[in-house]
Amino acid sequence: MAKPYVIGIDMGGTNTAFGIVDARGNVIASDSIKTAKHSNIDDYIDELYTEITRIMDAVGAEDKINGIGIGAPNANYYTGVIEDGVNLPWPTPIPLADIVTKKFGIPCIITNDANAAAIGEMTYGAARGMKDFIMITLGTGVGSGIVINGQMVYGHDGFAGELGHVTVKRNNGRTCGCGRTGCLEAYCSATGVARTAREFLDIRKDKSKLRELDPDSITSKDVYDAAMAGDKLAKEIFDYTGTILGEALADFTAFSSPEAFVIFGGLAKSGDLIMKPIQEAYDKNVMSIFRGKAKIIFSQMKEADAAILGASALGWEVKE
Amino acid sequence: MAKPYVIGIDMGGTNTAFGIVDARGNVIASDSIKTAKHSNIDDYIDELYTEITRIMDAVGAEDKINGIGIGAPNANYYTGVIEDGVNLPWPTPIPLADIVTKKFGIPCIITNDANAAAIGEMTYGAARGMKDFIMITLGTGVGSGIVINGQMVYGHDGFAGELGHVTVKRNNGRTCGCGRTGCLEAYCSATGVARTAREFLDIRKDKSKLRELDPDSITSKDVYDAAMAGDKLAKEIFDYTGTILGEALADFTAFSSPEAFVIFGGLAKSGDLIMKPIQEAYDKNVMSIFRGKAKIIFSQMKEADAAILGASALGWEVKE
Repeated sequence: MAKPYVIGIDMGGTNTAFGIVDARGNVIASDSIKTAKHSNIDDYIDELYTEITRIMDAVGAEDKINGIGIGAPNANYYTGVIEDGVNLPWPTPIPLADIVTKKFGIPCIITNDANAAAIGEMTYGAARGMKDFIMITLGTGVGSGIVINGQMVYGHDGFAGELGHVTVKRNNGRTCGCGRTGCLEAYCSATGVARTAREFLDIRKDKSKLRELDPDSITSKDVYDAAMAGDKLAKEIFDYTGTILGEALADFTAFSSPEAFVIFGGLAKSGDLIMKPIQEAYDKNVMSIFRGKAKIIFSQMKEADAAILGASALGWEVKE
Repeated sequence: MAKPYVIGIDMGGTNTAFGIVDARGNVIASDSIKTAKHSNIDDYIDELYTEITRIMDAVGAEDKINGIGIGAPNANYYTGVIEDGVNLPWPTPIPLADIVTKKFGIPCIITNDANAAAIGEMTYGAARGMKDFIMITLGTGVGSGIVINGQMVYGHDGFAGELGHVTVKRNNGRTCGCGRTGCLEAYCSATGVARTAREFLDIRKDKSKLRELDPDSITSKDVYDAAMAGDKLAKEIFDYTGTILGEALADFTAFSSPEAFVIFGGLAKSGDLIMKPIQEAYDKNVMSIFRGKAKIIFSQMKEADAAILGASALGWEVKE
């Protein structure tokens, strides 16, 4: 029989958040440590172990943990290995599932962070009860978690769901962190929004509050603040961003015809500024047999909770 | 216990092929009728019933049929209805599964023709044993059948897998039969190849055997024959076609990271003429974490067999 708690760990390049979660999805204890502080992964795992043991003790959860789930960049569900962790301070590959299983004496499953968020959304959020949906995470990059027939899509190699890296501009596209050009991520991430702002300010001559800022340090938050204050150019930056994303979603529908797209992450906080152009471009571009079917909605979860809860759900999948 | 035979029916706009298939995938009897001959669907079903009964009698398969599977354009697996059958001579929607079940007294399941081909390939062809692959059918149009985790992807509404209608040219794309512009199908179908030939002949001035033909009646077969005879322009038409398809496949990999793409249909007979540019464009465009992983291969099935066998496999899924 399953033990009553699981541990969820959201491992990012800067911070690692973790929590103890019960079978109903309540986070009964949580905390975080600085990932970036440790130049040696053994020291990092030691601190993680110390801190998680501390909160387990505090709530009396020792020996009651069914499994540990971790969401981490480029984490492979099948192999348990982080194979190319660009944003982590340690050399890859990292056999993370094995390291954690041995250190804690508790079975551990890992998956990439966007997949963990999708699992969280399916279990506790806006996608509850859905068997077919696509989670799009708009953060520093663009990630995705795809659910088909009620199952996460991991693909043949464990790396499926890299929708931030479909090509949206075939010619003269922006360079992308992945080494290619024209990727969705280069346009629709928070950094993509900032790049669009710099391009618009450079090419165009119309007035904008954004001209008062140092172009090189403009963030998507600056663009949001300006748009909310009525700045026309800032609004057009969101139109541009949302249109590219809506066109891409229309193509994704031709692939798996989901019940919904769930938009998650920092840019999702922009509300109608981003949602309106997404929906308009989607409706205009989707094939007629799909028109009016898929919903495009925002995540219903707090970002921190989604990652911990999503990762923790993997803790129920472990086999002793 | 399952009965020993199934019936597979491949229903096209012009012809309908059908066969009786045993549990090992042998087509023990087959024949075809003209779909287009019947302006009334009841007459069509009557002839189908008469002809299938005749071949059942001939091989002693009466009362030994487990189920009937049909592959047909725009056929919905979930509802059993052909919802918008552009190439069929009868008004839609057509509740085909119900009609056939009643007429034959045998349970019937339907799906679209590309999905049926994918099921055939998975059961009897190049995708045997694969849990994750994508079938691309290059015929008059471009169809697809997507298998993930060993299951056909039908999507929320039963219409998933319309990869012929992802947008490959966002601006100034060719008009497509679906009413939109820039679809993969407008470039990489047999008709797409013929359109490319007309465009190339129109825009360019270099010599080509294709100039001896009436431009309006050029077919993909003409382009193939010219290319095989060493015609440079004809070869470039295949390069152009294969490049667009290879770029699209690279995007599909970012979605579901399949073990293989299986290329099927008339244009697949062009061999290296089409495969070389597909593979080159794929290798150039796929994200580095996926490089060198997915195979791109031709179907191992005869077209007629694939459709009948694929459809027939549905006959094992029926529940009494």
